[in-house]
Amino acid sequence: MVTFVEEDPLPLWIKTAHSQVMIFIGFGCLLAFFRFYGFSGMVFNFLTATFAIQWAILIQGFFQFYYDGKIHLGVINLLNAEFACAVVLISFGAVLGKTSPVQLLVMALLEIPVFSVTEWAVLKYIRINDAGGTILIHLFACYFGLGVTFMLYRPSLNNGHAKEITSYPSDILSVMGTLFLWVFWPSFNSALTFKGDDQHRAILHTFIGLSSSTITAFALSALFNKRGKLTMADIQNVTLAGGVTVGASVDMMISPVAAYALGVMGCTACFFGYRYLTPFMAQHMRIQDQCGIHNLHGLTGLISSTAGICAILLATEETYGPSMYQIFSHRAPPVGDPKLLELQKLIPGLKPGLGRTAQEQALYQVAAVFTTIAASAVGGLLTGMVMKLSFMASPSDKDCFDDELFFDMPSDFNSIEELKTPMSNDEKGQLSSADTKV
Amino acid sequence: MVTFVEEDPLPLWIKTAHSQVMIFIGFGCLLAFFRFYGFSGMVFNFLTATFAIQWAILIQGFFQFYYDGKIHLGVINLLNAEFACAVVLISFGAVLGKTSPVQLLVMALLEIPVFSVTEWAVLKYIRINDAGGTILIHLFACYFGLGVTFMLYRPSLNNGHAKEITSYPSDILSVMGTLFLWVFWPSFNSALTFKGDDQHRAILHTFIGLSSSTITAFALSALFNKRGKLTMADIQNVTLAGGVTVGASVDMMISPVAAYALGVMGCTACFFGYRYLTPFMAQHMRIQDQCGIHNLHGLTGLISSTAGICAILLATEETYGPSMYQIFSHRAPPVGDPKLLELQKLIPGLKPGLGRTAQEQALYQVAAVFTTIAASAVGGLLTGMVMKLSFMASPSDKDCFDDELFFDMPSDFNSIEELKTPMSNDEKGQLSSADTKV
Amino acid sequence: MVTFVEEDPLPLWIKTAHSQVMIFIGFGCLLAFFRFYGFSGMVFNFLTATFAIQWAILIQGFFQFYYDGKIHLGVINLLNAEFACAVVLISFGAVLGKTSPVQLLVMALLEIPVFSVTEWAVLKYIRINDAGGTILIHLFACYFGLGVTFMLYRPSLNNGHAKEITSYPSDILSVMGTLFLWVFWPSFNSALTFKGDDQHRAILHTFIGLSSSTITAFALSALFNKRGKLTMADIQNVTLAGGVTVGASVDMMISPVAAYALGVMGCTACFFGYRYLTPFMAQHMRIQDQCGIHNLHGLTGLISSTAGICAILLATEETYGPSMYQIFSHRAPPVGDPKLLELQKLIPGLKPGLGRTAQEQALYQVAAVFTTIAASAVGGLLTGMVMKLSFMASPSDKDCFDDELFFDMPSDFNSIEELKTPMSNDEKGQLSSADTKV
Repeated sequence: MVTFVEEDPLPLWIKTAHSQVMIFIGFGCLLAFFRFYGFSGMVFNFLTATFAIQWAILIQGFFQFYYDGKIHLGVINLLNAEFACAVVLISFGAVLGKTSPVQLLVMALLEIPVFSVTEWAVLKYIRINDAGGTILIHLFACYFGLGVTFMLYRPSLNNGHAKEITSYPSDILSVMGTLFLWVFWPSFNSALTFKGDDQHRAILHTFIGLSSSTITAFALSALFNKRGKLTMADIQNVTLAGGVTVGASVDMMISPVAAYALGVMGCTACFFGYRYLTPFMAQHMRIQDQCGIHNLHGLTGLISSTAGICAILLATEETYGPSMYQIFSHRAPPVGDPKLLELQKLIPGLKPGLGRTAQEQALYQVAAVFTTIAASAVGGLLTGMVMKLSFMASPSDKDCFDDELFFDMPSDFNSIEELKTPMSNDEKGQLSSADTKV
Repeated sequence: MVTFVEEDPLPLWIKTAHSQVMIFIGFGCLLAFFRFYGFSGMVFNFLTATFAIQWAILIQGFFQFYYDGKIHLGVINLLNAEFACAVVLISFGAVLGKTSPVQLLVMALLEIPVFSVTEWAVLKYIRINDAGGTILIHLFACYFGLGVTFMLYRPSLNNGHAKEITSYPSDILSVMGTLFLWVFWPSFNSALTFKGDDQHRAILHTFIGLSSSTITAFALSALFNKRGKLTMADIQNVTLAGGVTVGASVDMMISPVAAYALGVMGCTACFFGYRYLTPFMAQHMRIQDQCGIHNLHGLTGLISSTAGICAILLATEETYGPSMYQIFSHRAPPVGDPKLLELQKLIPGLKPGLGRTAQEQALYQVAAVFTTIAASAVGGLLTGMVMKLSFMASPSDKDCFDDELFFDMPSDFNSIEELKTPMSNDEKGQLSSADTKV
Repeated sequence: MVTFVEEDPLPLWIKTAHSQVMIFIGFGCLLAFFRFYGFSGMVFNFLTATFAIQWAILIQGFFQFYYDGKIHLGVINLLNAEFACAVVLISFGAVLGKTSPVQLLVMALLEIPVFSVTEWAVLKYIRINDAGGTILIHLFACYFGLGVTFMLYRPSLNNGHAKEITSYPSDILSVMGTLFLWVFWPSFNSALTFKGDDQHRAILHTFIGLSSSTITAFALSALFNKRGKLTMADIQNVTLAGGVTVGASVDMMISPVAAYALGVMGCTACFFGYRYLTPFMAQHMRIQDQCGIHNLHGLTGLISSTAGICAILLATEETYGPSMYQIFSHRAPPVGDPKLLELQKLIPGLKPGLGRTAQEQALYQVAAVFTTIAASAVGGLLTGMVMKLSFMASPSDKDCFDDELFFDMPSDFNSIEELKTPMSNDEKGQLSSADTKV
């Protein structure tokens, strides 16, 4: 049974609506970048997102909002479910173009419970600071997706696929998706922070991180191109690295300069990941990361987690004042500690914590990173095994990256396809980078 | 003369802005699904919407916000006018591709007053519960549109039209429109509910209804397709059925399970309506419902109204507590009733009502449904007669679904048109479904 | 060093997010209207906007938010920086298609400081009423852009350029940009007004102005077209004139009728500007205003400033009550004036002003208009000189309006280009109007 909790829903709904724009429109457009796979990119994103959110409401409801024999339902559940949904969609990026909708639904069906259990265990037992969801959302999604794609390895696709290309309109559509993600990312990163100053910092740090990574992405794209030209795949993906990289410390007093630096670092790692790591992983590790989620969510997530740990180690009462025990709530004194009463005089309503030191909290963060990576990788491998079962209607290698397998196509699609046969040398050179998007 | 009312405008403006995104961008993209009629779909939507909102501000202002010799103007009028505008745009869907801008403006010119009078009469004399606007918005718009298209019947178009097809980019654009409508629909359905819990329920029920209808639409689309493929028209339209279907009971305590079931029912009715009812109406009843508004707004509206009546009949003080008299405000005791004073102790500021029983309120809802359908159908028929007058510049059958009649076209439009002549068999088979969109 | 100010960020962030949608998505799509320059229009907008905002945060921070040895940073700085960014993007419209990204970054690098100094000087010393930013944003941006394009004059382009054309999909994309700007413009114009009534008026006046200019634009476009057809360039640009025209008096009690009239006037001036003034300026004054910013921001800005001055002259305490001294804050009595104490009893917290009369304030407004135009024109000319330096990688005349110079292009771009050679007569006739967009 499901009931409602009382609360004024508008502020939460606004953040939820912004997150929905990112998920349905931002991701949907971004994933529609293949020339012959635009319907699938946008529509499978729609289908998978809708299914994942519903499923996450139930599963998270059971783990986090279940008491008095009921799942308690409110806009906050919706927001949490959108985050879980984002996890599935990021993982989807690893196998874009190579999976049937049935496979995607099965992936969501299995990923959501693994994610929810991991989230519940980490939040309940390890207890971490992770306002932007770097560890639980981005790292989990990345390593789960890599696990799945490892199992779905298709050796023949390592030589490229004739349809694995973009087109003029599909590249523009994909940039639009990037812009929607860019614009609303501060809402996403600040959605679950404390009100007031913490939220303020989360908005600004996210904006600053995105800005610096955007500028850096343009610079690197032009500098490392033979003819000094820009590559659309970089603009569609690498620009967003900063949003992930500031995540783990987004509500802390890391200073705008640090947020800026994080954006630059995350962007740089992401850029070179696309150039060198993704092809290497495909050739030598059987990991075909179609949209390069390991660059945009994995490498940046690791940098972000490290930065979060540094910020935790550096946090002192001198800098934060007593509000430190709000942001780092597990460092607040436990029930019964006389210091708690003292602090509650300064901050009425301060909740008792676990009395952890900075070092202890940092260790717990490290534990959370490893736990999350392990759980997600194992979960991904097992899920990939299930998705490989023959009745999952996996497309043949030849039919990858092609809408025609799944949709009744309008007649102009044939004339688009005729352009397919003669592929310019220019384009062949781009395959390895087109290979590695999102 | 027009003056302003005092109020903090931000919360209302946010909902209005969300509604504007739905109207200008959501509808605009959705209606741009024809291959040769993208300019018209998007731009006539823009023109008609702008005109309808202005006109509705005046007309509704006169009926609902006129006192002290002035129309009182605030963001709330804007929001109400956007709803009236949505009515016109839904009706527009019935005649898309077959009308000149002059005809559309005349339709808006006549539909807004008929709508405003009906709205005013229903709200003032019949007094109903209809938070999501199922009866007044969706049913009115649907039967008005059917009335218009009945008068504008074009027998030759029953055999299909060479330009009545979509294209790869136009289908993607139309899905984007669907996504914008999907994402912001909870704002639309909750805009006029009470604050707090009612709004909360409205947001969640709308989300749940949309989710279940989306999943159902994908399933039905694949199941009833000969080759198990998805049809874009279903994804663009049928997915949205749940948003309408939860409308009439969206703020009531119907439970999430009921909202889910309503989404499934509405979606199923809508899907089979597109498959069987729309072609039947075109062939046998002279009703060419171009975008299938009878499926997405009529059938769903009838289901929703019925569900609303059931929810009213089932509502008891045990379930709702004294807040029942807020949601079902006409059931509150009238002025002078001692029970009113008692309730006002529990809920300060509770307004006196009409002292109706649940059964009475249900009968009034039924009366409102029939009144609305009758008024809209008659209004639509008369409006269609006016639109048929010769100086309305109605396009010839041959020129339907073609931007060239109304716009200076860029030169690549000719090369798009060359694709027109050879039409594949595949496409001919789709005509009857392309026939029935939105 | 940069620190944060305490404040609940959500209301400001929502307005900032709306402004970001306008800047990144609205402008981005609008500027992507050229057939072979869609990547550049959208992506250079992204690059320039991101750079301009960062740079403006620093420069405005130094001029407006610097005290105690620190720049104080909050969402409000972000919002102010978005406005500065809008200035750069409007100026960008004058040179669209004829500049390299390096040139655009240099333009932003120089324009932001000139703008910030002008803004700071006008706000600190002249002190004006300009809620919608007509003088400081639109007029500044326009004359700066004209100054730049005067210096970058390319005589050969006065005869048109083969690639200076739109396409079917690019025109649709551009209309989408217009719609995003249209929908969120009330947020932009009301972002910096007082809370409550002033904001309410700003939202409504902007909506009314946009509505009337949209209707007028459609009417003029059809009336002045030889065959009564609509021109997409008008719909993409002229419809928006009302948003600028109401700007300077947007929060004043000008009455909705006046807002409506301003929309009609601004739209008419803008429309005829595109038809007659822009070609004249290109042929005879060496000013090639690519997107016609002088029509959409200059002419409308001048009308708006004049209307603002009239509204100031007509403002009396009878109409406004004591709140007049809040809106026209410089007319409030200065410190020490006994009338100030009296007013502060009516409006607690009223800030002391300068005790200006209406006539004095009007003169200061005039001074601000001339100061802004002079500063921006000179700044634009000097910036244009710098941008002309040879190492700025300015594209050759032949390479203008072509993405291929700056991007690795997908293979279908070549097939798009093949359509280029045979240009219809119809299209040649449109060149002068395609010449003059945004």
